[in-house]
Amino acid sequence: MNLYIERDQLIRGLQRVQGIVERRTTNISLAHVLLSAETGDPGSVRMTATDTMVALVASYPARVEKAGELSVDAQAFFQIARALPEPSVHLVADHTNRLQISSGKSVFNIVGMGPEDFPPLPSRDEKSMLKVSGKDLRRLIEETHFSVSADDNRYGMNGAHLEEVSGANGTARVRVVTTDGSRLSWSESGYEGKFGMGRRMLVPRKVLGEVKKLVESDDAAWDIAFGERSAQFHTDGSGEGANSGVDLMVRLVDGEFPDYRQVLPSAFKRSIQLRTDRFADALRRVAIVATDRNHSVRFAFQEDGLVLSASNVDMGDAREEVPAEVQGQPLVTGFNVKYFQDILGATKSDRIQLEMGDALDPCIVRIPDRDDCEFVVMPMRME
Amino acid sequence: MNLYIERDQLIRGLQRVQGIVERRTTNISLAHVLLSAETGDPGSVRMTATDTMVALVASYPARVEKAGELSVDAQAFFQIARALPEPSVHLVADHTNRLQISSGKSVFNIVGMGPEDFPPLPSRDEKSMLKVSGKDLRRLIEETHFSVSADDNRYGMNGAHLEEVSGANGTARVRVVTTDGSRLSWSESGYEGKFGMGRRMLVPRKVLGEVKKLVESDDAAWDIAFGERSAQFHTDGSGEGANSGVDLMVRLVDGEFPDYRQVLPSAFKRSIQLRTDRFADALRRVAIVATDRNHSVRFAFQEDGLVLSASNVDMGDAREEVPAEVQGQPLVTGFNVKYFQDILGATKSDRIQLEMGDALDPCIVRIPDRDDCEFVVMPMRME
Repeated sequence: MNLYIERDQLIRGLQRVQGIVERRTTNISLAHVLLSAETGDPGSVRMTATDTMVALVASYPARVEKAGELSVDAQAFFQIARALPEPSVHLVADHTNRLQISSGKSVFNIVGMGPEDFPPLPSRDEKSMLKVSGKDLRRLIEETHFSVSADDNRYGMNGAHLEEVSGANGTARVRVVTTDGSRLSWSESGYEGKFGMGRRMLVPRKVLGEVKKLVESDDAAWDIAFGERSAQFHTDGSGEGANSGVDLMVRLVDGEFPDYRQVLPSAFKRSIQLRTDRFADALRRVAIVATDRNHSVRFAFQEDGLVLSASNVDMGDAREEVPAEVQGQPLVTGFNVKYFQDILGATKSDRIQLEMGDALDPCIVRIPDRDDCEFVVMPMRME
Repeated sequence: MNLYIERDQLIRGLQRVQGIVERRTTNISLAHVLLSAETGDPGSVRMTATDTMVALVASYPARVEKAGELSVDAQAFFQIARALPEPSVHLVADHTNRLQISSGKSVFNIVGMGPEDFPPLPSRDEKSMLKVSGKDLRRLIEETHFSVSADDNRYGMNGAHLEEVSGANGTARVRVVTTDGSRLSWSESGYEGKFGMGRRMLVPRKVLGEVKKLVESDDAAWDIAFGERSAQFHTDGSGEGANSGVDLMVRLVDGEFPDYRQVLPSAFKRSIQLRTDRFADALRRVAIVATDRNHSVRFAFQEDGLVLSASNVDMGDAREEVPAEVQGQPLVTGFNVKYFQDILGATKSDRIQLEMGDALDPCIVRIPDRDDCEFVVMPMRME
């Protein structure tokens, strides 16, 4: 391998693979990024990283004088790339699998491995494909990723469920649903193409996080292809500074997602509309004292607003009033304050609406004037 | 206690005590800040925190309706103060030692303790006093604090040695000297008043850190009073936003500081002058690979500059060239790269000068055109 690449392209590529590589394992090849240089006009370097559940493949333009392939530690290479002095970087490798990295008067030689030692990638098996805009994909993930179960042993909840639903005018929409058993989020959007994800399959939590990072800086459209037990996320990118040519190959998680429609209440007895900023500030303050395992906060729906309170024996107690328009009878109940903080962190609306039945019924959180997402939070029994 | 205080004053006061309070202990009163409210025109709240080795006492203006004293957890109170919604804060405490904190529609009640349970402060015993500008004090500490031994068992090196030296024109100057056995730093400045610190006494490392924070934002003069086994740092502050009325009462560390003049070489055979920014960049890159316990880097002083190199078996090797004016014969030796990074981090000069004898002689680091500070770094044997 012998090539010249722009330092910024190298840094962008190595940055992307950091979330994919797996360092907490004795298999050091999972911590590696595979570099595959191809000649051409322009030439390119393909970077591949995988933890065997998900693989990221992306290409970057380079002036390639000699094609070749080797893998090196992704974190070490990233650290070096960021520190290089000049905008152009020269990479050379021979049969000894050492990568020479030079830029200006800096020269690094790092120990690599041949491509034959790189782990196998998740298989590809495309049965159907849909297309969704980067903006919609970003929103779908932002509004749902936080309520995936963090417990990998929580069978059927450790990933996002995708399904096809019918829109108001009969058009097909894709809906993403996540739950950890104490709360649930769903968000949906229109798409083109054909939805084909298996009923029993879930998109793993780690993949949601990686796609979220990739769509943060780019509105270019994404193709999502579904196979029997796999999915593939692909974007061509929208040009300069964008995700030009990124593929994520994903092994889906097997598991029965719960019948979530059962927990969505169809009616409510009380509703309250709050200014999002005031609600968020009050939650933040009362959370300081809500340090028990469940971050319990007492919610008192009163005539003229919401009163939040919490206490702990070591520290003391806190009380907050959030003025609001309230409909229905007063009610006192309790919630995990973090669940509301997650919802407010994911939404950009000025106002937010809470709908309640009785004290032990779930609370529905809606964004006024939007019917393409909904959040459900289970209450907790307060003494 | 019943008083009104500006939130910003409260935050500033609580911020200052965070470095003093001690959380890693079963004595919870060491994690507390003592609030002492005094009526008057204007009234004030004095905040006191101590780990028994050092105490910080500072006063803040407040409208005090009823005097009183109690202590509360400093970290919890700080967290609450930063989250309060309105610029004015109302503090109320009664005989139950609960502190009520209210601001706008937020109310907190936190558990406190009476002043009788607050730990005793280091004693005051002023025998002599000197005055130094905040700017000079800042420089004295910045140029020396990093080479205090981090090992508390390193008898005689776990603090800063202060001594009086004679300036070029016969004026008395104060010199701060620190060492950890592998490197040494000294820095000196003029002062007014009388130096009176005991020969055997050292200013503890933690105190240097706290004074450094206090002088960062204020050039107001400081009084340093010395007792037999104590010192007191005091500033009146320079007004708005400043350290108005801060006292640090310090129990000095007992220990024989080594006879440091013995290790200061009086002559050298080689010298090299480097651009600080280029040297710092090269050190940063080569440090990526210098991951052994001693962060060993090979320094080759060549005719046209300095060549730095390092290697480790897992990762590979790195090589850097820094062009420079060199006087004397070529030489190869090795150093802990962190020691040079610390020196460059503390100095603001554009250029830096290294002076060497032979391969195993200490390296003197100087700032061109300055004779009020000097750094010594011991070399290591390279294979």
